[in-house]
Amino acid sequence: MEVKEKTGEMSRRQFLTAVGKIGGGAAVFSVMGTLGLLSPETLKAAEYTPPNKNDLVLANRNGKKIIILGGGIAGLTSAYELGQAGYDCTVLEARTRPGGRIWTVRGGTSDTEITGAAQVARFAEHCYLNAGPMRIPQFHVTMEYIRKFNIPIEPFNNVNDHAYYYNENVGELSGHKVRKRAAKADVRGYVSELMAKAVNQQLLDLPLTPEEKEKLVNYLKAEGDLDKDLFYKGSSRGGYKDEPGSGLDAGVLRDPFSMKAILNSGFGNFFSSEYSYDQQMMMFHPVGGIDAIPNAFEKRLKGVIEYNSEVTEISQGESSVTVKYKDLKSGKEKTVTGDYCICTIPLSVLKSIKADFSAEMKSAIDSVNYASAGKIGLQFKRRFWEEDEQIYGGNTLTNMDISSIYYPPTRYLDKKGVLLGYYAFGANADKLGAMSPQEREKHALAQGAKIHPQYYDEFESSFSVDWKSVKYNLGGWVSYTGDQRQTIYKTLCKPDRRVYLAGEHMSYITAWMAGGIESARSVVTEIHQRVLQE
Amino acid sequence: MEVKEKTGEMSRRQFLTAVGKIGGGAAVFSVMGTLGLLSPETLKAAEYTPPNKNDLVLANRNGKKIIILGGGIAGLTSAYELGQAGYDCTVLEARTRPGGRIWTVRGGTSDTEITGAAQVARFAEHCYLNAGPMRIPQFHVTMEYIRKFNIPIEPFNNVNDHAYYYNENVGELSGHKVRKRAAKADVRGYVSELMAKAVNQQLLDLPLTPEEKEKLVNYLKAEGDLDKDLFYKGSSRGGYKDEPGSGLDAGVLRDPFSMKAILNSGFGNFFSSEYSYDQQMMMFHPVGGIDAIPNAFEKRLKGVIEYNSEVTEISQGESSVTVKYKDLKSGKEKTVTGDYCICTIPLSVLKSIKADFSAEMKSAIDSVNYASAGKIGLQFKRRFWEEDEQIYGGNTLTNMDISSIYYPPTRYLDKKGVLLGYYAFGANADKLGAMSPQEREKHALAQGAKIHPQYYDEFESSFSVDWKSVKYNLGGWVSYTGDQRQTIYKTLCKPDRRVYLAGEHMSYITAWMAGGIESARSVVTEIHQRVLQE
Repeated sequence: MEVKEKTGEMSRRQFLTAVGKIGGGAAVFSVMGTLGLLSPETLKAAEYTPPNKNDLVLANRNGKKIIILGGGIAGLTSAYELGQAGYDCTVLEARTRPGGRIWTVRGGTSDTEITGAAQVARFAEHCYLNAGPMRIPQFHVTMEYIRKFNIPIEPFNNVNDHAYYYNENVGELSGHKVRKRAAKADVRGYVSELMAKAVNQQLLDLPLTPEEKEKLVNYLKAEGDLDKDLFYKGSSRGGYKDEPGSGLDAGVLRDPFSMKAILNSGFGNFFSSEYSYDQQMMMFHPVGGIDAIPNAFEKRLKGVIEYNSEVTEISQGESSVTVKYKDLKSGKEKTVTGDYCICTIPLSVLKSIKADFSAEMKSAIDSVNYASAGKIGLQFKRRFWEEDEQIYGGNTLTNMDISSIYYPPTRYLDKKGVLLGYYAFGANADKLGAMSPQEREKHALAQGAKIHPQYYDEFESSFSVDWKSVKYNLGGWVSYTGDQRQTIYKTLCKPDRRVYLAGEHMSYITAWMAGGIESARSVVTEIHQRVLQE
Repeated sequence: MEVKEKTGEMSRRQFLTAVGKIGGGAAVFSVMGTLGLLSPETLKAAEYTPPNKNDLVLANRNGKKIIILGGGIAGLTSAYELGQAGYDCTVLEARTRPGGRIWTVRGGTSDTEITGAAQVARFAEHCYLNAGPMRIPQFHVTMEYIRKFNIPIEPFNNVNDHAYYYNENVGELSGHKVRKRAAKADVRGYVSELMAKAVNQQLLDLPLTPEEKEKLVNYLKAEGDLDKDLFYKGSSRGGYKDEPGSGLDAGVLRDPFSMKAILNSGFGNFFSSEYSYDQQMMMFHPVGGIDAIPNAFEKRLKGVIEYNSEVTEISQGESSVTVKYKDLKSGKEKTVTGDYCICTIPLSVLKSIKADFSAEMKSAIDSVNYASAGKIGLQFKRRFWEEDEQIYGGNTLTNMDISSIYYPPTRYLDKKGVLLGYYAFGANADKLGAMSPQEREKHALAQGAKIHPQYYDEFESSFSVDWKSVKYNLGGWVSYTGDQRQTIYKTLCKPDRRVYLAGEHMSYITAWMAGGIESARSVVTEIHQRVLQE
């Protein structure tokens, strides 16, 4: 009971630490579970115990010099966590800002892709594009740093049934913009009708009691909004031709699409994009741009990050790591030596950097592929999606090249806004990426205008990113095959003598900031343990 | 083309007005539709043309004196719209604040229910309970006033898959708190499996081509996350026993519940609560409390609202309406006379006010029922739902009396927070409403603690509302039967000589602020037309 009473006064972290000191690792979770304080799942974040200065003192060790390559989220987390424990860290970052792919493009932001395509963003005040990560699941470890650093957040509207599906070459509904609610109501309606009737008519051999079958039918009635005879005949869930109003105006329901039309439309295949573990609501993002996260780390890493530092060579001695880098400001070649190195450089970039890694490690790094991903921010002088179409955040999905349009989940009711004109992957991203920024803009406008005819009247300026063409990234995120996870990935997970790899690519939470953070925390823990045992 | 080019420079309202002047009513929508500027649906908001001062001048008429009974959203809208057109309005409001059911309870707010139960809220700064309306669908007319009055808004997290379902007496899963994502994944998985196999084995007589059947099966595979043999064997959508992490930690999926267990749990019947037209994401609410809406109206109605004015009698002469009311401050009886009256007093209250309505109208008012609804705000000294359970907004649903728990969709990461400890309707609301505020608190804590054991350690104070017991409301919202809509409702919709009824109860958008607004706009239009033709 003493422990239980104490928890009221303690933070979860303090409690974990306290119980951890009494009972050690596994016991913590069992106690927390018994008290009902832990959620049924084990979150990665809860498993981490930061390295502690006292451990070093107790072990009669000093904090070592750690060279961290790359100032993205993995590098920043490593430097922050090791710094808190008294380690001397240097982060080498080629750019003049922290964050890596965590990049907010604002008015004045400039970039030249490796093809030579140069852009300068002409976005207005408060208008921005989160070119890389843009949303955070509420249970990701990222939220822990947001909390620790007091970063203001707001919801990221990942689900909006008032936005549209729009497909081409899908039969009857080709070229129709259909509110998501309408497609969902019709698909769920027809499928539930078929299923409910099949259960009712004993067409299915179900391992269920009659009472359970009745429950199943009742569920399907609720799920599909079926009438008492189990028919789907449209539903208010799908919306109205004419909304209900005041007085005698009861409204007029929309007519459902036919089962054939809605089935052929392919809209149903979009539904599950909202179901995936890390895309389910609620999601969040920092107010004013995702770069609030790297900026908050940077503020706490004064003198630790060396910008304009392009790594050119990594080499290891008996008990040290030496990194050569080019100071992009002076053009001079510089050298730094430390006890350990955490290399967070994307493998797509690392493979071209000279390093005395083992042959196995080299070959592993060489064989990894990165995903294609591209975005364009379109600034409009009027938020017509809000004003004319009542869409506040969320996305419209389409089978056109642009794949999706995301409405800004921030500063609602403002005059201007930056709409994400496409967020494309794979072949679509490659096609768009191969275009010049001017062509991308033209293409995004032409396809987007099919859904929003207001585009041409309201458009002001754009900024686009093809991640495969962005220097120091050369890809959206790592993309392992199942085989690679069993082979080369295991090699990448082992330190190459004194060099440890970290980043989203060193996790099973790829493409997420949380992958970079979790990976950094693991490596930090490994290095700390090694130092204690040295 | 001239019109199209013009629209870029004009607001939608200006455009509607301009085209309306050229072509008149119906033509507006047809032109807007052709230009693709209107959404496929006809929104009520777009149909309203505010009364215009110039109309009165042209018709050689003066604005008249309008007496408005009730300072809720319908009364405020009426006074605002008529005031803009030069009418002389007086709003009589019994309370000392505007808004009626639009009520934000803050520290210091006091209220005594008709049973004599008195409460004073002891909420901390920034902590509040929206005791009545708390969320706004993005397409409701309410957003138009929010835009017009520049009221800051933020999302209302009506959907959160990281929150729970918790049911009792439902077999195997009784008393288990289950993340919504897990229940959704399992139900969709099993149902899709059954259906996909039935389609594949030609058990169903479907009016579909083989190609369409394949599309249906593919949809079901995506919907249920089925394997290649169409089995549901769990899904990452349902979450993990142990989340994926860094390095070699691929995570461990949770085991799905059995089909029988999940079917008997009743969780599936909760899903459709998120599907209904006006509960779909995205939803919004004003930052800092829903009373920002009535407060914004009040600011624009200086000298128009007379507070502390309890209406005691409504009587009509040949060409006037006289309203007697009690000044609750002085205790004096007062009288006001006008040309017309808009009565927005809930029918549950109006039926006890002396009025010389027609017998038909009186009988109609008498026969209307109001819904039971109750809420309790529980202030906790720590946001354990965010800190321990990573739940940021959204709701947990249960078959216990408390029905639901809503996590505050605002000021995330704050220390304290007011959680909606129950939002109950019908019999549950009656049961809780019959209790004293102390008993309600005790009951809400006891049931809520089954889901969140942190309750007792973290609880600070509560404030509860039973709408049937709130003076000047006596009910949550109107509740017509289908028959009543065809009979007495039609009577209520006709003015009784010079008295017009308005409010959510005079609409098909009952229980929503939008119903009150739409109703007010209709009545305002009717009165204006009548004045023009006098």
